[in-house]
Amino acid sequence: MKFTMLDFFFEPRSVAILGASSDEKKYGRLIFNHFVVPYFKRVFPINPRVSEIMGIKCYKSVFDLPEVPDLAVVVLPTKLAIQAIADASKRGIPAIVCITAGFSEVGRDDLQEELVKALGDSRLIGPNCLGIVDTHSQVNTLFPNFELPEKGNVSLISQSGSLAIDLLLALQQNKIGLKRFVSYGNAADLNETDFIEYFGQDPDTKVIGAYIEGVKAGRKFIKISKSIARKKPIVVLKLPSTENVSMAAKGHTGAVASTMGIYKEILRQSGIIQCDSTSQFINSIKALYTQPPAFGNRIALVTNTGGPAAMALYRMNRYQLELAELPDNVVDETEVVIKKHAVQTSISRDKNNNPLAFMDLTGSATTEVITEISKIFLKEKNVSGIIIVPRSDAPVVSKDAPARIALLKREFPKKPILVYNLPDPTVNAEFEGYGIPVFRTAEDSVDGMYALVERGRILQKYLY
Amino acid sequence: MKFTMLDFFFEPRSVAILGASSDEKKYGRLIFNHFVVPYFKRVFPINPRVSEIMGIKCYKSVFDLPEVPDLAVVVLPTKLAIQAIADASKRGIPAIVCITAGFSEVGRDDLQEELVKALGDSRLIGPNCLGIVDTHSQVNTLFPNFELPEKGNVSLISQSGSLAIDLLLALQQNKIGLKRFVSYGNAADLNETDFIEYFGQDPDTKVIGAYIEGVKAGRKFIKISKSIARKKPIVVLKLPSTENVSMAAKGHTGAVASTMGIYKEILRQSGIIQCDSTSQFINSIKALYTQPPAFGNRIALVTNTGGPAAMALYRMNRYQLELAELPDNVVDETEVVIKKHAVQTSISRDKNNNPLAFMDLTGSATTEVITEISKIFLKEKNVSGIIIVPRSDAPVVSKDAPARIALLKREFPKKPILVYNLPDPTVNAEFEGYGIPVFRTAEDSVDGMYALVERGRILQKYLY
Repeated sequence: MKFTMLDFFFEPRSVAILGASSDEKKYGRLIFNHFVVPYFKRVFPINPRVSEIMGIKCYKSVFDLPEVPDLAVVVLPTKLAIQAIADASKRGIPAIVCITAGFSEVGRDDLQEELVKALGDSRLIGPNCLGIVDTHSQVNTLFPNFELPEKGNVSLISQSGSLAIDLLLALQQNKIGLKRFVSYGNAADLNETDFIEYFGQDPDTKVIGAYIEGVKAGRKFIKISKSIARKKPIVVLKLPSTENVSMAAKGHTGAVASTMGIYKEILRQSGIIQCDSTSQFINSIKALYTQPPAFGNRIALVTNTGGPAAMALYRMNRYQLELAELPDNVVDETEVVIKKHAVQTSISRDKNNNPLAFMDLTGSATTEVITEISKIFLKEKNVSGIIIVPRSDAPVVSKDAPARIALLKREFPKKPILVYNLPDPTVNAEFEGYGIPVFRTAEDSVDGMYALVERGRILQKYLY
Repeated sequence: MKFTMLDFFFEPRSVAILGASSDEKKYGRLIFNHFVVPYFKRVFPINPRVSEIMGIKCYKSVFDLPEVPDLAVVVLPTKLAIQAIADASKRGIPAIVCITAGFSEVGRDDLQEELVKALGDSRLIGPNCLGIVDTHSQVNTLFPNFELPEKGNVSLISQSGSLAIDLLLALQQNKIGLKRFVSYGNAADLNETDFIEYFGQDPDTKVIGAYIEGVKAGRKFIKISKSIARKKPIVVLKLPSTENVSMAAKGHTGAVASTMGIYKEILRQSGIIQCDSTSQFINSIKALYTQPPAFGNRIALVTNTGGPAAMALYRMNRYQLELAELPDNVVDETEVVIKKHAVQTSISRDKNNNPLAFMDLTGSATTEVITEISKIFLKEKNVSGIIIVPRSDAPVVSKDAPARIALLKREFPKKPILVYNLPDPTVNAEFEGYGIPVFRTAEDSVDGMYALVERGRILQKYLY
């Protein structure tokens, strides 16, 4: 992979912490702690008032350092931060993360301008941010204390630091692995477009997730997104305000558009999958992380339980997902399976008596029935993807349900298979070990399927 | 409290289990287990093929019992279940729960008719259901094995058994206490209206939650709901189909209405708070369980964190909740607080420069600032309720945040106070100990506030 400037941030060979502290409660200490083990001897605490922190030699200024570090993390009070950035730039440090707040976010545009001037040729993430995480290089500038996601292939961008914590926690709880994370705050220099471009080029990043409040350069954002989206999904949470609407539209078409509809359509044409809530965002990433796109909005649903299926159908309606219509011979096939296993049920039909790819097998359905019916549906051209609900709390559902459904995934690799199940940690870990995402509610699984349908639509309609 | 027929179900003096089994994997054993301890010597296993189960004497038939039990639970294969119900009725058992499936839900309307005939003067819950739970009397006919909510004051109705498990688990995880629960399946005899009426009369039930797919008798359902809703909130999940729409409208106005809008308005006039998703349902119950109604849709928002606040405002928009406008003197009051504590921020304003009850205090705000600003907002007549976001992961937020915010609750008992916080079990348990619900995401807290606004609107506009 080509080396880019942003590698200085995410794969630095050495790091200086400007404002490192010996006080165990201070941000300057909390952040320093993360670097001590992975960067032992290549982490340089800078603080004129102490001689060492945790036994590691402390320097009075960046000019005293024995080498020029790749990355500087600034954790100083606002006015000191500007001087520190000027010094870091003079010393030739290429990458600077400024955690410090007190700039344009509190109306001090003057201070932010000073900061940008101080930057010189160096590049900056922040100010007023949590900074960055790389689970591979073990760079971690987050001062809040919480359990990070495991190493993996989702990269995350968040303008807000505190919402980012929620999103990272949700990834961790859903066992979705993280590659890189950036909270970029005021975006005085580097912004969302730079990170999308960078994560787009990273071969380890399979899905890009972004919480963005406002886009700095609409035209460039749209152009870059469109080019990255050809390679991997970009999921964006929010971007709601009318200012953003007009900005995005202006950047794209030269005209000022004021409706949410036009704005949303422009984002979609740019290859972006849009989410309105944090839970939809996480469900989308969860589905896109392991499943292929769904080409078409025709879904099949196989369940051993009625209520959650009703909730799933209800949510499908919101997203204009439909149950796939089926040819009559499929009905015959399903009846053979049903009769063989003496399950009392039949295929669903619409008002005009057309058969639909929905089967509520009731609580008496075994894993075998669930799998056989799912296979019949998956074979159909008209079926774009399937949601299977093999409630493993039903005593007739056998322990090998994950393995059996995983065989379907192997047989139909181009069709997404999502599962909704009760939180049975053992069974669900097995499903996820086979690359089949398990959702916590029926609606969550439909959120995930919608993201796959959107991804398919974007790929077919806008990107090729 | 007046004794009603349904007390035989929820507070039986003795119980017969028809189909009790000595096989530890069978439903008839799983259900029997729940009764052994609380009903020792007043629980009668019925099974002609065994002499005792867990050391408790087993009877060949209900006619051999030394007394007439108040409640019979039927866990037999479909055809045997009908005979068992006929026997129980002949023996004079007033209340029967039929877990057994295989009736109208699989197209066997004939068998369901037989079952109803067999019932005689007894009353029935089911068939094809999980039955009932009473956390006070310890009646529990659920065969799936999961952790129930603790004892409390929400009563829950669910047509679907499997969705009910999700809802009960969500209550448990949110530490919302349960009084009674009923999964009524096919509703061959008792239905949703009977349970709403019964829970409505129960002084221990503060909030009624219901998952309903179809209403059997629209006119009666609407009449009963309206009368119960005067006393306590009724939250309904779903009811989406057009069949239900027309049924509800027909019952109410005599005309067949076909649009969702009319249907939703009729339910609202009947005092029902409507939810579209399981998470909105749980968030609504969580808010209604401890908070007073919000009279008006004008909300205040105080936060030490920008991103989640943006998500909250975005969700408020969906529900047509608005930020309260404030008089100018309030702006002066907030400025005094801000200056005293040297926090760099100012009150938000709308496009016309009117001050709004929204303040993002940034990460440097202490508990004291958060509490003082919240108090200024709560004092305002125009503010219907407040969402406070005292992210306790910010190091400047002190440990006494729950106690300080609880003092506001004491000072303003008629205005709802909701909190959104990171999952810090200790801090959040403290908030909830003070009767202040803590939500997991910003959107969740807005879901909760919307339910309180709906409750206020229903009380003011339709019920008085």
